[in-house]
Amino acid sequence: MKTDIQIAQEAKMIPIKDISKKLGILEDDVDFYGKYKCKLSLDILEKNKDKEDGKLILVTAINPTPAGEGKSTVTVGLGQALCKMDKNAVIALREPSLGPVFGVKGGAAGGGYAQVVPMEDINLHFTGDMHAITTTNNLLAAAIDNHIHQGNALEIDSRRIVFKRVMDMNDRALRKTVVGLGGKPNGFSREDGFMITVASEIMAILCLSNSLMDLKERMGDILVAYNLKGNPIYCKDLKIQGAMALLMKDAIKPNLVQTLENTPAIIHGGPFANIAHGCNSIMATKTALKLGDYVVTEAGFGADLGAEKFFDIKCRFGDLKPDCVVIVATVRAIKHHGGVKKEDLGKSNVDAVAKGIKNLEKQIENIKAFGVVPVVAINRFVTDSDEELQFIENYCNNIGVKVALTEVWAKGGEGGMELAKIVIDTIENEESKFSVLYDSDLSIKEKLNKIATTIYGAKGVIYEIQAEKQIQELEKFGLDKKPICVAKTQYSLSDNPQLLGRPEGFEVTVKEVKVSNGAGFIVALTGDIMTMPGLPKVPAAENMDITESGEILGLF
Amino acid sequence: MKTDIQIAQEAKMIPIKDISKKLGILEDDVDFYGKYKCKLSLDILEKNKDKEDGKLILVTAINPTPAGEGKSTVTVGLGQALCKMDKNAVIALREPSLGPVFGVKGGAAGGGYAQVVPMEDINLHFTGDMHAITTTNNLLAAAIDNHIHQGNALEIDSRRIVFKRVMDMNDRALRKTVVGLGGKPNGFSREDGFMITVASEIMAILCLSNSLMDLKERMGDILVAYNLKGNPIYCKDLKIQGAMALLMKDAIKPNLVQTLENTPAIIHGGPFANIAHGCNSIMATKTALKLGDYVVTEAGFGADLGAEKFFDIKCRFGDLKPDCVVIVATVRAIKHHGGVKKEDLGKSNVDAVAKGIKNLEKQIENIKAFGVVPVVAINRFVTDSDEELQFIENYCNNIGVKVALTEVWAKGGEGGMELAKIVIDTIENEESKFSVLYDSDLSIKEKLNKIATTIYGAKGVIYEIQAEKQIQELEKFGLDKKPICVAKTQYSLSDNPQLLGRPEGFEVTVKEVKVSNGAGFIVALTGDIMTMPGLPKVPAAENMDITESGEILGLF
Repeated sequence: MKTDIQIAQEAKMIPIKDISKKLGILEDDVDFYGKYKCKLSLDILEKNKDKEDGKLILVTAINPTPAGEGKSTVTVGLGQALCKMDKNAVIALREPSLGPVFGVKGGAAGGGYAQVVPMEDINLHFTGDMHAITTTNNLLAAAIDNHIHQGNALEIDSRRIVFKRVMDMNDRALRKTVVGLGGKPNGFSREDGFMITVASEIMAILCLSNSLMDLKERMGDILVAYNLKGNPIYCKDLKIQGAMALLMKDAIKPNLVQTLENTPAIIHGGPFANIAHGCNSIMATKTALKLGDYVVTEAGFGADLGAEKFFDIKCRFGDLKPDCVVIVATVRAIKHHGGVKKEDLGKSNVDAVAKGIKNLEKQIENIKAFGVVPVVAINRFVTDSDEELQFIENYCNNIGVKVALTEVWAKGGEGGMELAKIVIDTIENEESKFSVLYDSDLSIKEKLNKIATTIYGAKGVIYEIQAEKQIQELEKFGLDKKPICVAKTQYSLSDNPQLLGRPEGFEVTVKEVKVSNGAGFIVALTGDIMTMPGLPKVPAAENMDITESGEILGLF
Repeated sequence: MKTDIQIAQEAKMIPIKDISKKLGILEDDVDFYGKYKCKLSLDILEKNKDKEDGKLILVTAINPTPAGEGKSTVTVGLGQALCKMDKNAVIALREPSLGPVFGVKGGAAGGGYAQVVPMEDINLHFTGDMHAITTTNNLLAAAIDNHIHQGNALEIDSRRIVFKRVMDMNDRALRKTVVGLGGKPNGFSREDGFMITVASEIMAILCLSNSLMDLKERMGDILVAYNLKGNPIYCKDLKIQGAMALLMKDAIKPNLVQTLENTPAIIHGGPFANIAHGCNSIMATKTALKLGDYVVTEAGFGADLGAEKFFDIKCRFGDLKPDCVVIVATVRAIKHHGGVKKEDLGKSNVDAVAKGIKNLEKQIENIKAFGVVPVVAINRFVTDSDEELQFIENYCNNIGVKVALTEVWAKGGEGGMELAKIVIDTIENEESKFSVLYDSDLSIKEKLNKIATTIYGAKGVIYEIQAEKQIQELEKFGLDKKPICVAKTQYSLSDNPQLLGRPEGFEVTVKEVKVSNGAGFIVALTGDIMTMPGLPKVPAAENMDITESGEILGLF
């Protein structure tokens, strides 16, 4: 069996200038990065402002399991299938982070015959967006320490600097550091730490901005520290947001590449799905909607986290209206939710499917709670039995939800035709009545309660003392009237990764509440979130190489 | 008077594809980065291997002074002048580092009407080379700490890790840090520190490699630490050089841009001129020599450091043969060497010129010591008096060295015509008999003695105890048969910045001796070298901005 990179390297890519031309983009609105990547001008939006938007299709999933569901693969495969049906479809994906590539495995570029290419570039430096974010983040961080060193006119409390440095690398040694050692020439020493670049608030801001000026203003609003009196200090107090916007002038432009079947794919932005909202950029999605009749996009993790944030944060800020949602599941993943151990997932077990399908059921209800019509995609594996597949089909039919089998990993677009037909049929015949779940102006607790009870199925929310204090502080500074971004385990509808299927009667415990004031949301943490990964005992990097002829080895 | 960025923004750039076409480069050998930047394939060298190389002209200077000499400006202006004379000239420059741009001022892109463009891109992310170096460097750094955390099979002594992390930012707080705090999950804590990216050995290696495979091998040879027995540990012991080469696959390709007058300019690589050799890449210079009949390049600092390293390190490793050397001086800088204070530099003072010209005299002798013919360029300022200029001209005539006035800052190529004519005349009529100064196989002390006495004019070299020990250790491990890279003040021929003009009777004190084993040279430090700058009280970044229409403000 061929590896992803072997398949990718055999792809017959067409020059990206031909793909951009086919989308009706003028050459003036394209900046090429080599032959198969380009950046799209923000002017495309203005030039097409009177053109009707395409249909927006979100791909989400049941709660992820170690068995793997293939959400990105289905996203790419569905786009390919729509193009095979002669529809003008554009895919909008997240950019992968470079750091994890060298760890265990990375890649948000799909798999098998449903991949975006050139995958080696997309997974390495791509068009430099991650590096621009790293630099922008670290300019602000340097400005903070420099301000303190140069007299600290703002009276920044060096014990309460909340803005951290970042690096796009899995480097556990940087999680907790002391900086500024070595005496007076090196500034004041203090505790600090690095996050991986995708965890930077700059990344979340990039993805939620509607223009370069909006980006600049949001960056200026980042809460970076508190002063000695306990009042917030913002980025703009350091007068550095102009230089930061300058550093981001190209990074804000969406990147256009293609799939293995030459379907246009816009890949732009990729924030964490826990402490941030986990979706590609608003600019990318909006641009795609002007260029394509159908836009297929995805959100991180399962529908309880990814889709909820897509609706309540991204669609709210971008004024987007999704037309259809695809919920990806696999027989293996459903069985996992039904209590089957990993080693037994290959054996047919209809009882376990019947138990585990409750997770899918809840996620279907969650999508309906936003007024959008869900469609189920069962991503087929060789070990799936006919009885298991039939059970799922019957189940969906009984609750009036359309379901399709997909085989996009093995067959590319051809394997997604059934799903594509159902999606088109749904969009044409069932109106989306999308609305967000809650009003941003509600109190933090009211908003959290709404999400936890409606989406997670919780009895209620418990707050630890620290969270209570933080909520009071945000209310005091008037920073509370924003949507909520819950950082919660992706593996369960609850905040306990052990509770599979559709848990009931549980309460969600909020440990910490922070504001990402520039991004414009409040983060509620239900556990410790790792924002800087480490490398494993044998990093993937050890198997990577490039030969004299330019052949790339060991990258997936 | 217009600022550099105003002049740059008024430039009539032509598409870079037209410039590459005019140089005879096939479209397959070009990767565009937007409309005005591209990367050149390494295949160009192989395809043109039977073509005769162009003539190589090095631009260097007297010892730098606070008055400024304009070496980069003369380099760009000379290239423009040669093109004005219908010569096929190509400029080969260093890439500026992004970090300092936000500090006081940065830019290695020339000035006035002798600049390379698009200057804002060149000074910001450009084509991502700096970011690739940062990432490659930090992957190796992460691998070192990860190796120790995962069991430390190589028995790395965490007190003797010599390879540091880097960031392309002026951030003094990172000079001295402690990493790995927070207990077992975060690894073993140890003292560490960051350098700015251009100080990374990866940068020096990039600039001294003759192919991607050479780059990979050199990176594998980096000495990263010592083990508990005191033996060296190399990058290749961590099996990470393949992944590092993969990260550098595009960064190794030279970048093509243009000057304000559309002269082709290859800008690639920019290592420190103290702890490294301070020249653009061998690949860039070699590519330029295949594309142009005349190649104008520069080296860092004055001729005692920059030209010496250009000859003894870059030309040695790249098998390059310079045909002519331009030594840039100004009346003001010569007067500074003659003892005139900054506030009096505007007043005519022939006596001070007569005194300060000894610095120029020594640098002329230095170039001749390598068998290359020097030409003097006096970069004219408005305050220069006719008597002063006449004195310099007479002086050069008397010692048989050609001299030209240049006004390239104010007049572009037109202001460099006299210099261009003299350079062509010199190349056509005076044969270069270039040879390196010393044999690499000599002992470290023999090599250092040769450089110090011949080039600096010192009586001899003194070694501090630490340096003595380090030399013994390098000899023990057989790491001593390499050229020497002296890290010394740029302001004096001696190692004391106060000794201007042509000091005599001094000794050079070597404090530390280190090996950059991958780069292939031995660094002899005569003082403390700052490898991570800081930001000033009011960073230049505070005045930078980008407007809604895309206008860039405050960048120079």
